[in-house]
Order: sequence, then structure tokens, then C-alpha cells
Amino acid sequence: MGTTEPEGESLLRKVRRILDAFDTGAPVLGLSELARRTQLAKTTVHRVATEMVEVGLLNRHGRRYELGSLLFELGQRVPRTRDLRLIAARYLEDLALTTRETVVLAFPGDQAVLFAEKYFSQRGGGVTFTQVEGRVPFHCGASGKALLAFGDAAIRERVLASTLSRRTRWTIADPARLTAELDQVRRHGFAVDRQELVVGYGAVAAPVLSHGVAVATLTVVGPIDRIQVSRLAPVVTAAGAALTRDFEHVNN
Amino acid sequence: MGTTEPEGESLLRKVRRILDAFDTGAPVLGLSELARRTQLAKTTVHRVATEMVEVGLLNRHGRRYELGSLLFELGQRVPRTRDLRLIAARYLEDLALTTRETVVLAFPGDQAVLFAEKYFSQRGGGVTFTQVEGRVPFHCGASGKALLAFGDAAIRERVLASTLSRRTRWTIADPARLTAELDQVRRHGFAVDRQELVVGYGAVAAPVLSHGVAVATLTVVGPIDRIQVSRLAPVVTAAGAALTRDFEHVNN
Repeated sequence: MGTTEPEGESLLRKVRRILDAFDTGAPVLGLSELARRTQLAKTTVHRVATEMVEVGLLNRHGRRYELGSLLFELGQRVPRTRDLRLIAARYLEDLALTTRETVVLAFPGDQAVLFAEKYFSQRGGGVTFTQVEGRVPFHCGASGKALLAFGDAAIRERVLASTLSRRTRWTIADPARLTAELDQVRRHGFAVDRQELVVGYGAVAAPVLSHGVAVATLTVVGPIDRIQVSRLAPVVTAAGAALTRDFEHVNN
Repeated sequence: MGTTEPEGESLLRKVRRILDAFDTGAPVLGLSELARRTQLAKTTVHRVATEMVEVGLLNRHGRRYELGSLLFELGQRVPRTRDLRLIAARYLEDLALTTRETVVLAFPGDQAVLFAEKYFSQRGGGVTFTQVEGRVPFHCGASGKALLAFGDAAIRERVLASTLSRRTRWTIADPARLTAELDQVRRHGFAVDRQELVVGYGAVAAPVLSHGVAVATLTVVGPIDRIQVSRLAPVVTAAGAALTRDFEHVNN
């Protein structure tokens, strides 16, 4: 099988390819699948993966691999997300109690929105559970749109120049419409999702800013018939502004 | 300056040393401090750290380094902790509402207890906030003792053979006393901390088992005068047992 393995690619680039091969849909991978996903030769994957197991970056189960527990431990210590998660905990709890809906803290990842902390409403009965975890494209959903509107301009330009895939028939897949939507998000100070990510679900998100740039969002998610923007937007926006002040205070 | 850098140590071993150098007390490190902590030559640290920045394992701020955001993203996807965190969320919320105290999900890390998810009681007013985050030794506190009593025998033997440092004057620092305490934890089905980790604070922890071995704990933490074992132990133990059943059901 041919691979596109570049001549002389550094070991750490290969490590990164292997780490990127795992996702929530494919948490455990065999050698052939890893070779296919990384476009590296099987012998290369075997050699690098063996070293990665030795230092804890991967776990091995028989002939299959998964991301190592060490990565969870290191991930908990990443300063950029850690400080905000600690400060945000109380705001998430308050929002969940006030709105009685599921509340999440979302971060801008390298290629997608990451959902970091979730408080589940008792009323939700777990229905929104699997809908909000994992990674979702920036252009789908309230968190992503808030991160695009208030976040790093480079991410926004990259997303607007890319192919905007559809998750539902309400997903905004046209760059011009997305640009107009993001202008509106900036004017209003919050983003609304009306079944753009998951059919039957909506959300309202407010940005958390650091030096004027969104570093996260507070987002309330729930069944679309319960997402009343007039009720939710003021509390979410107020919580986002308060968390912004708290975070900037700690960061200075 | 002399280092103990072994001849021909692999690149990934050096990467691991550099990752391990960062902790919550030292989230941002310069080249000299990294060299001191890793016992690698400054030129080696500079070369390896530069590669690590390129693939996202480290972030650079001017001349200083911190763990990269990529690690947070990868950490969220580690299957072993991810599945349990998702299932545990509702139990944590329920326990926080029932006990009105801070509730945490703790995992056995490589060398220490890791606190993964926290629900803060409104009553706590954030006082327990910084006390429970980060990593703590296995022999201190309710979560650690529950993980030792019900967890992997290899970890227990390693801890009992090591020097048991004191955090407070109530910390169990004698191996024979710790052995007796762990027997009692196994008999009762839960562990109690009475100011053994932090003066003024106590906790009750119940194990979450997978194939009979503790993979996590549910722990209620609060000011020592509010930690009434007769009230808390039954609810924490019941939640641990229910979460164990749920987790085993999903895992099979």
C-alpha cells in the first residue's frame, strides 16, 4: 500500500500524526488502521507506537492502541484551559441552576470547538448528553459561532475559506450568510443555534474574553422548544461578562 | 553544569522528561529551569522543546514554555477517563445537590491522585476550591485511600514501600498504620479523611470499580465540622455502587 510519508519527516511529526489519528469515534486502533489514518508505513507506525507506549503517550491493548492516560493527566495541567475551567466552575453551576438546562464551557481547539465542562440539567434527563460532547465544527452551533465572532481572526478567515459541511438542514453552509450571521452575533453579544448542529436542539452562547478576544464560551443547550432566547440570552451574556472580568482579574 | 543525561536516551524519553517538568506549581518554565528539572543539557532542552512547540506539545511565550493546548484536547479524548467522566456527570450533580458539599471524581494517576471533575457546593462558597484541584499523594485523603484500598495492588505496594510524606499532623505516615487503615476502608466500603490532606477539611470517598478494581472514586469534600460520616457515607457509597453498575454496563 502506498503512503505519502514524507522523506525525513521528524519523529515528533510522526508522533503528532499518530495522536491525531484517534478520535471519539475511533478511540482504539489497530496497526493497519493507524497506518491508513496517518499515511505512514506499517513498520514506521509500529516502531513509533512502541516508543510512544514506553513513555506513556499511548496504551496498548493486545494488538490495538489507544491514547495514554498520561495525556489526560497532562491535559489537566495545561495552563490556558486549566485556569479558566477552575474559575468557570461556579458560573456553570449557577447557570445550570438558573436555567435548568445543560450548560457547557467550550474552548476553541486547533480545528474544532472543544467542550470542556458540562453541567447537566436534571430536567434534561440526559437527553442532551451525547449531543454536546466531543468536537464540533466552528460554523455549527452557538459555541462555535460565538468563538468565530469574538475569537481569533485567523480562525475565522480559515473557516470562512473552507468548505462548510452541513450537520442538519439548518446549518449555515454559505460563507456570505455565515459572515452576516457573525456580524449579528457581534452586535448582539451572544450567538443562537436553532437546530444547526443537532435536529431538535438549540443553544445560546456568550463569549468569555481575554484582552478582547474570545478564549471560551458559556453555552446553554436544550431541546429547541425550551430555548427561549429572550429568557436565556440575558443570563448567559451576564455570566459571560462576569466570568470575563473574573478571569482577567486572575490573569493580571 | 553537570547533568545526568544518559548516553543515547531516546528522543521520546527526553520529551517525557520535559512534559513531566511542568506542574500546577510551575506551569511556565524557562530554559534554565527546564534543564535543571529534566537533568538534560540546555542545548538538548532547547532543541527538543523547539520540536515540541512545532507539533503543539508545548506553547512558547517569549523565552518561556508551557504545556500545549493540544494536550488538553488529546486529554479529553483518552478513552479510559473519558467514558467514566461522561457517565459520572449525573452522579456528581446528584451528590452535590443531596449533600450540598463539593463533590469530585478522582482517578489514579501515574504517581498521584488526579481530580478530574468537580461540582462545587453553593454553600462551600468556593472555600474548598483550590484545596481539591491538582494532584495529591495516594496516602493522603479519602480519594487516595479508597484508590489504594480497592485499586491496583502494584500501586498499593509501591506506596507502602515509599516514604509517606506528611501534609498535616493527621496524615498517616506510618506504613503499618496505613495498612490497617486500608483494611478498614475495604471492610467499610468507603474511606474517610479527617484533616489528613488539608487542615480544617475532611472527606468521604467511595470507589468506582471495573472488574472489581477501583478505577476512580466519588468523593465528598468539605469543612471538617460538616463531614458527618454517618450522614455522608451511605449516599456516597450508594452513588459509587450505582456508578460502578452503570460503567460496567457500558463497558460490556
